[in-house]
Amino acid sequence: MRFVDLIEKKKKGFEHTKEEIDFIVSSVTNETVPDYQISAWLMAVYFQGMTETETAYFTDAIIKSGDIIDLTSIKGGIADKHSTGGVGDKITIILLPLLAACGIPVAKLSGKGLGHTGGTIDKLESIPGFRTDLNIEELIAKVKEIGFAIASQTKKLTPADGKLYALRDVTATVDSMPLIASSVVSKKIASGADFVVLDVKYGSGAFIKTEKEAEKLSQLMIDTASKLGRKFNAVISSMDQPLGRMVGNSLEIEESIDFLKGVCTPDIKELTYEISALTLIHFKKAKDKNEAFSKIDSVIKNGQALMCLKKLIKSQGGNPDITEDYSLFKQPGISYEIKADKEGYVKNIDAYKTAHACKLLGAGREKKTDDIDYSAGIKLNKIYGEYVKKGETVATLYSDSTDKLLSAIPEAKSAFEFSKDKPVERKIVYRVI
Amino acid sequence: MRFVDLIEKKKKGFEHTKEEIDFIVSSVTNETVPDYQISAWLMAVYFQGMTETETAYFTDAIIKSGDIIDLTSIKGGIADKHSTGGVGDKITIILLPLLAACGIPVAKLSGKGLGHTGGTIDKLESIPGFRTDLNIEELIAKVKEIGFAIASQTKKLTPADGKLYALRDVTATVDSMPLIASSVVSKKIASGADFVVLDVKYGSGAFIKTEKEAEKLSQLMIDTASKLGRKFNAVISSMDQPLGRMVGNSLEIEESIDFLKGVCTPDIKELTYEISALTLIHFKKAKDKNEAFSKIDSVIKNGQALMCLKKLIKSQGGNPDITEDYSLFKQPGISYEIKADKEGYVKNIDAYKTAHACKLLGAGREKKTDDIDYSAGIKLNKIYGEYVKKGETVATLYSDSTDKLLSAIPEAKSAFEFSKDKPVERKIVYRVI
Repeated sequence: MRFVDLIEKKKKGFEHTKEEIDFIVSSVTNETVPDYQISAWLMAVYFQGMTETETAYFTDAIIKSGDIIDLTSIKGGIADKHSTGGVGDKITIILLPLLAACGIPVAKLSGKGLGHTGGTIDKLESIPGFRTDLNIEELIAKVKEIGFAIASQTKKLTPADGKLYALRDVTATVDSMPLIASSVVSKKIASGADFVVLDVKYGSGAFIKTEKEAEKLSQLMIDTASKLGRKFNAVISSMDQPLGRMVGNSLEIEESIDFLKGVCTPDIKELTYEISALTLIHFKKAKDKNEAFSKIDSVIKNGQALMCLKKLIKSQGGNPDITEDYSLFKQPGISYEIKADKEGYVKNIDAYKTAHACKLLGAGREKKTDDIDYSAGIKLNKIYGEYVKKGETVATLYSDSTDKLLSAIPEAKSAFEFSKDKPVERKIVYRVI
Repeated sequence: MRFVDLIEKKKKGFEHTKEEIDFIVSSVTNETVPDYQISAWLMAVYFQGMTETETAYFTDAIIKSGDIIDLTSIKGGIADKHSTGGVGDKITIILLPLLAACGIPVAKLSGKGLGHTGGTIDKLESIPGFRTDLNIEELIAKVKEIGFAIASQTKKLTPADGKLYALRDVTATVDSMPLIASSVVSKKIASGADFVVLDVKYGSGAFIKTEKEAEKLSQLMIDTASKLGRKFNAVISSMDQPLGRMVGNSLEIEESIDFLKGVCTPDIKELTYEISALTLIHFKKAKDKNEAFSKIDSVIKNGQALMCLKKLIKSQGGNPDITEDYSLFKQPGISYEIKADKEGYVKNIDAYKTAHACKLLGAGREKKTDDIDYSAGIKLNKIYGEYVKKGETVATLYSDSTDKLLSAIPEAKSAFEFSKDKPVERKIVYRVI
């Protein structure tokens, strides 16, 4: 088989056979094909797509390109979730203790972030002492001990995806449905999860811009997983505005802790409850959504969810006192309050602009080797639907340098839109599949 | 400017600016962009195309990526032609002496062939002693001395195209109209020609399969050249069947010599006369096609065209006696005659199959470093429309090994189709632009 013939075949819009897909993935894994041929093939896939069958073969081949974690020694089955990425997305950090408090084990692998803010792993690492470099044996041991654990992704899992993703990133071939689906599904299956809720976001702060595309991608991921014998659900939600009030790293941990203490914004509550309910129902911890919602309410009210987070922090080497004393986080060098120049209701906070401002403040990284300022970020003192008086603070910016702050202020300011009339109540979940 | 953003832009179907095109070509020339980004961009161009303006900018940038030959010291202007490639295509070897005999200077650069048979340079090198490795000064000196000369392409001309072509070849991005057009037009303009006739072929033995595509490509090349201030014409012709009776290297030189002696097949005559006439009219050596045709007839009849070929061979170090004694060519080790198993008229000789058989016989090369067997090839004893008795020879195969011969026989046999009725007269020129 010659790789150039496979590029030609995909270019012409034909379907690859299983043998061809296996050849492509093993050539990538074993580095027996030059990058320039892979990238031409990826671009052909961008234009011609892959059928559902091809996508399943491709996903399966990627899974088999590396280690597959065996979590069958953990009783009761393992839950997982995956977000396609959004601004202020701290759902994992809230969800894991909630599920653990309800008796559902989670052994989660998560990534460091490239982009405007850090990933879940970066956010957790803003907790002094918190270790995410667990090996698989440690991860399993901790799940058995306290019910859940989270570790940074290992390169031994789906190495073909790692190589493909690195190439897609620099060849403008990231936004291809079958490539996204195979990347997500392969990682989740190789991580050993039994049931996964996909948190698929669309809007200005997401790489998917419309509901329809989000639906299409969700369905493709669910079908691909199903073809490979796994049950995935999806919650499709809007990412036009940041989730919650906090965007940054330690700031988002603070907001997650607040949630577990019963203090939260409606958008985070809506999304977290939907994802939790799907999981509780799947694992037969609740018979329907109502029962699931009550159960979640109760583990928050009785403090069990917060206790689980404390256990997690302790289990992974961090200081659990942080949940009661946020001054134990690294503190920002400098802060700035953006004041309203007139009164009105917050009509919109552009997610992309907010994220970009966060990056300018130092909360994200461009290259894998870049450092992240854990304390940098934005607190949205006012969010959608809230009333602001002239001169009131709408947002607070945190950074370690005046230069960064000065560059971020206009961007953060421009994210806000106001209206005279109170806007209608906002729901962010568009559909559950 | 980031190359990945330009890939994204082309992927989305937007038009590049002149600055972007210049950046792309200079990045290729200076090797400041990795091949995997170039190949992704090339595939995006395959799908999204380039506008006429982009194609002209791209062509211009490729021209400027290397040396541009200045032939203005040669009086009367310089003619050139380019063929998109066909089976048995020896038109250049016939055309140059014809034009020289009519007083039109040609300083031609030509390529070695990759594929089923050699290129024009390989064919000429089958003449013992013939040198094609002339430098530009030698080329110009020889044109001034005898009126014309031919040399193999130098890497100093359009180096960006050389790099792009090598990459296109292995990434299935050869068959893109703007990429083909820019490659051809840039080379011709950098070679210093004032007037160029494009010989654009379609059919089973060409990479373009239909008349419509050939027309589109021709018009694009003419328009691109025109935007860059040059006059190009095009002759669009069928390449469903091989040109003439001979396919190989020295075999095609023999047929070219025969032509200049007045012995030729109708297809070669039709095509050569059309291309010659366009050139004669452009250089004001004839006022119309009729006068041009008479002039060509006369330089063949009076022996001037043959004399010019002898001069060329002598001028470039070859033995001109070869024009009178074909046994001076390297002779094939072995030959085989394919006999007709029933009587009838030749209805078709598949160009692709004939070419493939030639390659099996050793007439072509796969890699640039492969050797070519100059004596290998096929003589079509019977061609389109000719009557064959049962047992008569329809084709003769030449090679240096029995194994090669045995592999080529079934392919060459299968190229022939016969009919009971005499087929209609065949014209190969579809259109002149």
